[in-house]
Amino acid sequence: MSNPARPDPIQPADDAARAMARALLAVPHAALAYLDPTGGPAISRIAFGLCPNGQPMTLISALAPHFAALKADPRCSVMVGEVSVKGDPLTHPRLMIRASASFVAPDDPDRPTFRAHWLKGHSKAALYIDFADFAFVRLTPESALLNGGFGRAFRLTPADLVA
Amino acid sequence: MSNPARPDPIQPADDAARAMARALLAVPHAALAYLDPTGGPAISRIAFGLCPNGQPMTLISALAPHFAALKADPRCSVMVGEVSVKGDPLTHPRLMIRASASFVAPDDPDRPTFRAHWLKGHSKAALYIDFADFAFVRLTPESALLNGGFGRAFRLTPADLVA
Repeated sequence: MSNPARPDPIQPADDAARAMARALLAVPHAALAYLDPTGGPAISRIAFGLCPNGQPMTLISALAPHFAALKADPRCSVMVGEVSVKGDPLTHPRLMIRASASFVAPDDPDRPTFRAHWLKGHSKAALYIDFADFAFVRLTPESALLNGGFGRAFRLTPADLVA
Repeated sequence: MSNPARPDPIQPADDAARAMARALLAVPHAALAYLDPTGGPAISRIAFGLCPNGQPMTLISALAPHFAALKADPRCSVMVGEVSVKGDPLTHPRLMIRASASFVAPDDPDRPTFRAHWLKGHSKAALYIDFADFAFVRLTPESALLNGGFGRAFRLTPADLVA
């Protein structure tokens, strides 16, 4: 039977958790949860990267369903973390970030910096990065949960995610 | 500039799309989008498998945040599809399924069948499958979207997902 007096299974972040979270952020793609027009939960794969200041961001095509959805409601959650070939995937570390999406305008003065930085980690994006219907979107973290395997869950603040 | 007269980028499913979707369902884990208590979009990694009849399902711990969330609101979306080491992850096939979650009661007459079938694909789950705070959850598809890479998106019905 489950124990009604069990402690909160999620611990505050320590240095090891912060280091693991930052390592997980160095991936080129993520899963994105967002709200569809009915308010139901939807999911997509997104390209994922960091601004030069460590802020998460993505590059989205207007053809993707989450483009219009995030314009209508900026609330989203992002999950990063690869699954290794071996072992139970539920024991492989992953980081879930609750975030708010904000679109970067084509004439935003920061866009050239974002563009140059993005191409370092996503060289194949050179094929479409300048298409008029692609946009950079900042994903401003509000909170995060690191799951490092069974019994190893940590709450993180936005500051914990930035080195 | 984007073309205001561009056609719907999502095509109806054909046999190749159905075969690709069914192949993607043969994975042991998935990403799950669900609603948190505020109605915002949340995301988790879940174990993923099929019932003997081909119906998607998962096995969830009561410690996972999506356990209580899916009990409160069964709407969810599931994404399956591995990312290969090479190439742009946005060109790797993935399947997004809009689904409704229904918990399988511990005394459900189908549970022994689900349990035996689940362990064939998730042998490490033998460690916890019988814990009282783990539950099987059926994920009944309502619709699905297959993204097989740029320009290769297909709408699928629940029937398309079952061989």
